[in-house]
Amino acid sequence: MQPIEGNERVVIEGVSPEIDGGLFPAKSIIGDEVTVEADIFADGHEVISAYLLYRRANEAIWTETLMQFLANDRWQGSFTASDLGNYLYIITAWVDQFKTWRQDLKRRVEAKQKDIEINLFIGAGIIREVVKRASGADGKQLSNWAEVLRSNTTSQKDKVKLAMSDELSKLMEKYADRSSAVTYPKKLVISVDRKKAGFSTWYEMFPRSAADKPGRHGTFRDCEARLPYIAEMGFDVLYFPPVHPIGSTNRKGKNNAVITRQGGPGTPWAIGAEEGGHKEINSQLGTLEDFHHLSATAQEYGIEIALDIAFQCSPDHPYVKEHPEWFLWRPDGTVQYSENPPKKYQDIYPLNFETENRQELWEELKSVVLFWVEQGVRIFRVDNPHTKPFRFWEWLISEVKRDYPDAIFLAEAFTRPKIMYRLAKLGFTQSYTYFTWRNTKSELTEYLTELTKTEVKYFFRPNFWPNTPDILHEYLQTGGRPAFMARLVLAATLSSSYGIYGPAFELMENLPREKGSEEYLNSEKYEVKNWDIGRKDNLKDFITRVNRTRRENPTLQSNRNLWFNATDNQNLICYSKHTEDLSNIILVIVNLNPHQKQSGWINVPLAAWGLNSERPCRARDLLNDTIETWQGEWNQMELDPNTCPTRIFRITQDTLRGKAPKTLNN
Amino acid sequence: MQPIEGNERVVIEGVSPEIDGGLFPAKSIIGDEVTVEADIFADGHEVISAYLLYRRANEAIWTETLMQFLANDRWQGSFTASDLGNYLYIITAWVDQFKTWRQDLKRRVEAKQKDIEINLFIGAGIIREVVKRASGADGKQLSNWAEVLRSNTTSQKDKVKLAMSDELSKLMEKYADRSSAVTYPKKLVISVDRKKAGFSTWYEMFPRSAADKPGRHGTFRDCEARLPYIAEMGFDVLYFPPVHPIGSTNRKGKNNAVITRQGGPGTPWAIGAEEGGHKEINSQLGTLEDFHHLSATAQEYGIEIALDIAFQCSPDHPYVKEHPEWFLWRPDGTVQYSENPPKKYQDIYPLNFETENRQELWEELKSVVLFWVEQGVRIFRVDNPHTKPFRFWEWLISEVKRDYPDAIFLAEAFTRPKIMYRLAKLGFTQSYTYFTWRNTKSELTEYLTELTKTEVKYFFRPNFWPNTPDILHEYLQTGGRPAFMARLVLAATLSSSYGIYGPAFELMENLPREKGSEEYLNSEKYEVKNWDIGRKDNLKDFITRVNRTRRENPTLQSNRNLWFNATDNQNLICYSKHTEDLSNIILVIVNLNPHQKQSGWINVPLAAWGLNSERPCRARDLLNDTIETWQGEWNQMELDPNTCPTRIFRITQDTLRGKAPKTLNN
Repeated sequence: MQPIEGNERVVIEGVSPEIDGGLFPAKSIIGDEVTVEADIFADGHEVISAYLLYRRANEAIWTETLMQFLANDRWQGSFTASDLGNYLYIITAWVDQFKTWRQDLKRRVEAKQKDIEINLFIGAGIIREVVKRASGADGKQLSNWAEVLRSNTTSQKDKVKLAMSDELSKLMEKYADRSSAVTYPKKLVISVDRKKAGFSTWYEMFPRSAADKPGRHGTFRDCEARLPYIAEMGFDVLYFPPVHPIGSTNRKGKNNAVITRQGGPGTPWAIGAEEGGHKEINSQLGTLEDFHHLSATAQEYGIEIALDIAFQCSPDHPYVKEHPEWFLWRPDGTVQYSENPPKKYQDIYPLNFETENRQELWEELKSVVLFWVEQGVRIFRVDNPHTKPFRFWEWLISEVKRDYPDAIFLAEAFTRPKIMYRLAKLGFTQSYTYFTWRNTKSELTEYLTELTKTEVKYFFRPNFWPNTPDILHEYLQTGGRPAFMARLVLAATLSSSYGIYGPAFELMENLPREKGSEEYLNSEKYEVKNWDIGRKDNLKDFITRVNRTRRENPTLQSNRNLWFNATDNQNLICYSKHTEDLSNIILVIVNLNPHQKQSGWINVPLAAWGLNSERPCRARDLLNDTIETWQGEWNQMELDPNTCPTRIFRITQDTLRGKAPKTLNN
Repeated sequence: MQPIEGNERVVIEGVSPEIDGGLFPAKSIIGDEVTVEADIFADGHEVISAYLLYRRANEAIWTETLMQFLANDRWQGSFTASDLGNYLYIITAWVDQFKTWRQDLKRRVEAKQKDIEINLFIGAGIIREVVKRASGADGKQLSNWAEVLRSNTTSQKDKVKLAMSDELSKLMEKYADRSSAVTYPKKLVISVDRKKAGFSTWYEMFPRSAADKPGRHGTFRDCEARLPYIAEMGFDVLYFPPVHPIGSTNRKGKNNAVITRQGGPGTPWAIGAEEGGHKEINSQLGTLEDFHHLSATAQEYGIEIALDIAFQCSPDHPYVKEHPEWFLWRPDGTVQYSENPPKKYQDIYPLNFETENRQELWEELKSVVLFWVEQGVRIFRVDNPHTKPFRFWEWLISEVKRDYPDAIFLAEAFTRPKIMYRLAKLGFTQSYTYFTWRNTKSELTEYLTELTKTEVKYFFRPNFWPNTPDILHEYLQTGGRPAFMARLVLAATLSSSYGIYGPAFELMENLPREKGSEEYLNSEKYEVKNWDIGRKDNLKDFITRVNRTRRENPTLQSNRNLWFNATDNQNLICYSKHTEDLSNIILVIVNLNPHQKQSGWINVPLAAWGLNSERPCRARDLLNDTIETWQGEWNQMELDPNTCPTRIFRITQDTLRGKAPKTLNN
């Protein structure tokens, strides 16, 4: 090993965000500030200059922005993500001779040292080195200043004033000697999505159950009639399970019965029949034209249609005949149907993603997504992505987003944590979560802390679902109306994106197939339902208020700003979110016990919000539109599940005391 | 982007140890088990095979060892670090078709499925694929087994028995299909040091103060006479401040006085005079021959001599004249002396490590270390490494350790945490720490948790010093004898390596230069001292007992096994260490209040130690050699600083209930 060439002495490490050593992009939302931090230091006591450089991935020119020293060798810089797509960022830093000299001189002056002429002379030398690189006027100016520092006729006081002047610093910064600069060796990537990637309110519904009369198969036209109802509640994404032809071989009957009754509709996830596969619409729902009409009308209501991507086939899918090589055939000439023990999907064949013809298969599947993209669909809920190769999704999503950077992919992966995170890293825009099974205060606190306060926040965008067609949690089965209200508010205020499977949710459908099961009794997955949305006990007014609160309070539209507040009652969970400028502070309290009234003391962290904890604050109850005045950092509260198990407050005070520490919001 | 070639589906991530993405080696001790963990997973539900591969850095052949699944996609493998120097390790893993088939078949059999002939037939096909790669006899055996699984005459029961047999598994493992194997792309490094790198007991002393009579300058011969005293106390490293000629220009006087009195000895760190520099011995101490004699005698006492590497020069160092280009000259023809505001070192010139002649300078400095290595020295305490370039040390240490892998470098860097950690990462064997300033229970708990329970444990080996010639902490200034005893036990039992600056320590020297200062009054740095080690109140007997406890209890010889135990008194700190096999369990309690008796309840985590918490345990007090019988997981304790502020117990029980979870010791 030879003594090392060069004089790069700066270390840049601990860069954040940097996902898996730069293997994956971090995520941001258009218009948001991207904050980059790093540990930057060198040996000795000299002063460092550090810059954050960034550019759009498809552009050549880097933009530079000076990084600020925070504390403990940590530095921070930021830029605005003003376009969709990928941005690159790097960091460069060096030991800055001029800034070191300036700081040293400042200390000597402050210590009232008199013998600083030699130091001023040295400074002149540093400036004269820079003159060599400076352009005409700047060079002349710097040259003059160097002469002043060397001059015998200028007073020491004036020389010091010049040395400390902003004008000199500015020019020296412009022509700084970067010959010893160290540049972080990885170009890191941040992927910028549209607003809805970060803030979205989903309503899942089976179009075939949208008919206004029992016994009739619903259509896209029926869905159109349902739009005002959905829009009024405040949802902006309407997600349909697969809308394609359904196979008849081994078609499932009511409650997942293996032998179907004649005329049963089958499950929409058994995709493909003689009439076609993933690019075809089930004729019972209507035509492609009907779909376009529905999409256009939805748009008028501020609603986007999201479709389901379920890459699997019924035994009747055209692929089975046209591309038998895309399936794994057993020695007896059959294809093993899908299994996820103990679940069996006798009506579904998995695709063999590892087939030798996989290039052809993968391209075909891409063409399915692009087909729907061309029909105007930009949001996809992807069914069970964890049972297909990671590299397939990484490839597919990057292919689609290259031309359609507004595309959104929601990963419906209920599997082990590392796999769920991997899918988010490789490109999924949003992800299903464990929220559905996190019901106690400690479970919720621990899980949300992981999602919002660790590296996970940079790549995993949670989408919280209190229920899905597959999951009716015991809490909803047994908790009655208060349980549905509590879970809705938790989902809607803990996570900036959430969804419900309706009308089952707002009609508080709570019967499981059997005790201990999370499946719905008479699940809509296997039959056409007729929902009485006009029922008096429909939760729609409550949902409407909660979703309006989300729209009107920007702090509920992000997650990294979540903080849990102490309470002295394990049944009461309390948390708050606030915007960085503190103009919007929301405090939420939920009684997690749906059966009993609960009361307790709630921490109201006025000082942490930059408010005056000596003065009263105003708490506006956003669900009941009442106003209370609170005094001090603790407030007693009682929540009766029989009236409403939750309250959402907006906190204000006449005069703000100051800003909260910036890192609070990071 | 084209659909990706190949069928590698496994992800390997979160490898541990992996320091800064593999930029730096982790550290281990010869004979120790190196445990490697990683998250390993793929899409789907198939079974994975994973191997840890390792080799010495200078050898070509990898050795493979099967990794075991722990939980939550975490896998673990290990190997023994049997030689000094660097080892490389990687991980390879694949989706294992045979193991998947076997697991699937097992589930079907357990579910009493009858129609498994097709599955047995598929298994035969998998085995026949492997036959193609198997050698003669193995191939024939596998081929036979495949036929059995396909045969019509063998019973299903016998086929299943064969499918599940260890013999089949073993051969299938041997010839496993690795065509889809993923190998972790980084070759990670672990650096293996000798035992003393991890477990060492240091005694620092100024040789010039070793004379037996006041007024005489001590010599190496005097040091020899001191060896029995040091060895009896149980120290195995004897560290000397620089032993080189001391400059006379600007030589410091008593208490760091700028103008020295005539005849003052100066500070040993002002290295270099007309008689020579870093390769010369101060003639007042003796000759190189005397040094050799001392080293040899020390060795007989089980003591190794450690020298100080202080790369800086007095103005009289030969380098200043011979290599003026190695110093930074100011326009007035002077060299700016060293400063570390507010400290001024007028008698010391820093070397300019960034000089254009740095190759020559760096080589010269390397030759200094190699000179002492050739004199038999293998342990170096490096003075202020954080004021020299990181790359210099990285280069120097790797150069020395290439030929002398038994060399040990202790970084004397008292600076910001990230810089201290960087020095450890780039190669320093041991490091000074903040222990000297961590005195309360929460400070100690927080700091030790960082050192022993985070990634830091892989690269940073702490060496705890209750005092140094530069630091007399207020706790020692004011706490009297109990404070010295408490700090000694904390250093000696919290950290496997520790040291004291003596005889100041055992004689409880506690006068600061002035109130608020951490400098000693009449510091030995600036004068020759005469220590009355025969004083009655010398702590040597106590130190002897503590160091014997360290030698006799292997669990005190490592750090990753440290666990804090709850107490109900903030003045009582309690912690324990145990070997992985639970044969050695040590519990330490210290009263941190040197002025008042303290009592409280101490948690004795019998169950976590694999002991029966229903039965009494034996607690042998290793400082007083008494035995107590304790019952249950809480024990009341009283510690009177006036007798002894600390107790060290060895815990045993007649019958062990079982082993603690393996991860406890990781």
